[in-house]
Amino acid sequence: MSITGDHRLLKRLNRTAVVRQVRQAPGSSRADLANATGLTKSTISLLSQELIDEGWLVELEVEAGGSQARGTGRPPTPLVLDEHRLAFVGVDLGLASATVVATNLVGKILTESSAAIDTTSPARASAQVARMIEALLQGAELRRRTTVGIGIGVPGAVDDRTGVLRFAPNLGWKDVPLRDLLSDALAGGLGAGLPLYLQNDADVAALGEFEFGEPPVSEPLVFLGLGTGVGAGIVVNDRLLTGAGGFAGEVGHTVLDVAGPRCSCGRLGCAEAFVGLAAVTHAVLGGTEPPASRDPATLLQSLPAAAFDAGRAARDSQIRAALERAGQYIGLLMQNLWAAFDPALIVLGGPTCELGDALLGPARERLAEYAQAAGLQPPAVRQARFGRLAHAVGAAAAVIHYQVRPLSGAPALVGVLPDAA
Amino acid sequence: MSITGDHRLLKRLNRTAVVRQVRQAPGSSRADLANATGLTKSTISLLSQELIDEGWLVELEVEAGGSQARGTGRPPTPLVLDEHRLAFVGVDLGLASATVVATNLVGKILTESSAAIDTTSPARASAQVARMIEALLQGAELRRRTTVGIGIGVPGAVDDRTGVLRFAPNLGWKDVPLRDLLSDALAGGLGAGLPLYLQNDADVAALGEFEFGEPPVSEPLVFLGLGTGVGAGIVVNDRLLTGAGGFAGEVGHTVLDVAGPRCSCGRLGCAEAFVGLAAVTHAVLGGTEPPASRDPATLLQSLPAAAFDAGRAARDSQIRAALERAGQYIGLLMQNLWAAFDPALIVLGGPTCELGDALLGPARERLAEYAQAAGLQPPAVRQARFGRLAHAVGAAAAVIHYQVRPLSGAPALVGVLPDAA
Repeated sequence: MSITGDHRLLKRLNRTAVVRQVRQAPGSSRADLANATGLTKSTISLLSQELIDEGWLVELEVEAGGSQARGTGRPPTPLVLDEHRLAFVGVDLGLASATVVATNLVGKILTESSAAIDTTSPARASAQVARMIEALLQGAELRRRTTVGIGIGVPGAVDDRTGVLRFAPNLGWKDVPLRDLLSDALAGGLGAGLPLYLQNDADVAALGEFEFGEPPVSEPLVFLGLGTGVGAGIVVNDRLLTGAGGFAGEVGHTVLDVAGPRCSCGRLGCAEAFVGLAAVTHAVLGGTEPPASRDPATLLQSLPAAAFDAGRAARDSQIRAALERAGQYIGLLMQNLWAAFDPALIVLGGPTCELGDALLGPARERLAEYAQAAGLQPPAVRQARFGRLAHAVGAAAAVIHYQVRPLSGAPALVGVLPDAA
Repeated sequence: MSITGDHRLLKRLNRTAVVRQVRQAPGSSRADLANATGLTKSTISLLSQELIDEGWLVELEVEAGGSQARGTGRPPTPLVLDEHRLAFVGVDLGLASATVVATNLVGKILTESSAAIDTTSPARASAQVARMIEALLQGAELRRRTTVGIGIGVPGAVDDRTGVLRFAPNLGWKDVPLRDLLSDALAGGLGAGLPLYLQNDADVAALGEFEFGEPPVSEPLVFLGLGTGVGAGIVVNDRLLTGAGGFAGEVGHTVLDVAGPRCSCGRLGCAEAFVGLAAVTHAVLGGTEPPASRDPATLLQSLPAAAFDAGRAARDSQIRAALERAGQYIGLLMQNLWAAFDPALIVLGGPTCELGDALLGPARERLAEYAQAAGLQPPAVRQARFGRLAHAVGAAAAVIHYQVRPLSGAPALVGVLPDAA
């Protein structure tokens, strides 16, 4: 009997299995892990020691009482995820600003910073983001930890193998080798050589909910990001659904009305033309011209305070009508996501959610009406766990996801299977 | 070093790898397979002999010339899929009729039969289908072969682990243990004990295109089934996207117009209310009342011959307008599927496609218009390879899919990984 194929890949798979099992069942002993994964106790011992050494896992101290209660021998040592030694950096590169966070292994935000960004030049934007990352890495909190990698969420379609941003209409970027630009910009500093993961911002936000779900979330998971752009991140079979060209989940450009208003993409009646933050702002403020800015922070600031307060919004007919209509279209979009993906959970996130119940109330009601009309139970809907940091924290989660991701059943996998003859 | 976990599962994975590799690269030698899969030559020898013995693979005879050209020793023996020894049975259980086919390993239809079915009673329908299967198995063509299993495609949401049809509105069935009913009905005959696979009909049609694709198709693959019901089967990462409750791909119930007509499901403005065969028939025939029947064959028969001929349809203003409008909504639905799934390929199938270019021409044009407005390249679109047999042949393909399916990266898999310590 012999082992063939790529041992490193195989070992990574086994590490993944152990980390995920400890997350699933905190306090598992090595024997529990051997049972749950089917690996031998000696492999589990080696892997868990390695993971302990690297900072992924930590042994809990067993109380003497617990040991004596069991009656015999050395008590099994519970293993849990180590919250104190590793750090994961996440970048939300937005339309006019960037946010950088660092989290621990279970999604606790250790540090964050935001700054305006010049996104007319990908190289300058990368240099600015690199400086923000470097400042974070220089800080006391991260100096005490080992930083595992850096995730970057961007508002566009991404080729996650090459790290090329293929198309970001709201940034005006096309075919930008963003991972390489950022890697170059980080050279010479503390971030030099760290693994970089580039992914769509709604996709990383979905990973944030998936990897940091407490309790763990079920699948399929749809994260619906509501901002200037409207897009979904979808997790199915433990993996992102990214599509043939990285464009999957661009549900802001599903058409909700053939005769609807012109969308930023050129089509008529896209969801974004009804529920994008620019459209919502325009509807609330009235007037003939749409807002000049597409930056979500600027758009939110231009809105009256009453729009953020459901009670006051209800007493202002213009605001109420605008938010109700937009909310109903969000409900329609959720209904369509439900029919297409049959999600176990829809998570609503993005800056537009700051408008709160005056907008999201009608959205939930419209979804419930569709469900009632069809006599079906709608999927669970809740707001993003990390609020306005959903993209940045999600980008940090993407580092964990790509480091300890169960591989798909793709051909690459069968190459590492052992000789069972 | 030791191997742990479930050897049978491991062996199945390796068999899957070998069969898929031979399909990918027909004529591979054992050495080629060892290279491509990473398995040892001795494992490949054992597995390929087993697969040859069972009828999945066959050795091609090597010409003497080819051997001498290589110069030395015994020439490598090319392996190909065996088209002659195995059979796969597929059932399309429709609204008022059933079609049963048998195919070989590469999708060649060996035999087929159709019959009217009493679908008011699941038990009676199962008995009728069992008799049709039995007749097929008794025939000379299948007597000569080994039948591997039976796939059943149904117009509804399915739990493929339990074989329960959860909800089929057009049949009026809910929570029917169809796999068990059919298994009972097959007892005592040639079909007794054969593996049964129950799945949604659009899903199996997608598997038919995927497993029998010639040349092999890329992913994601979306099969859009156009009939009385409208639904999509989606293949991503070598697997069906079935959703939390088996309802994924129910894109006939995505809403295309908030103020649209009432759908059979109770909602307003669903795609099915615009492009379902009953709606299309109603629009072509005119009148105030929708068609009494929902059976696709009956609906197609009620249409004038001119509707099936693009030239004649173009000269009849009522028919032209009805088919153009329905076609444009099919184009809109394809646009939305594109935005949601970013498919490499959309396959159009189902009985409504028999209306041909007068309907599908405007659909393609509308998709092209949306793509042009957005400055993007739309996905490839083509018609189903197996026409009106798409569901039945797809159900046969589902047998192959479930027998030699690459497993996902689900926890089950890591249990069979070897001790790499």
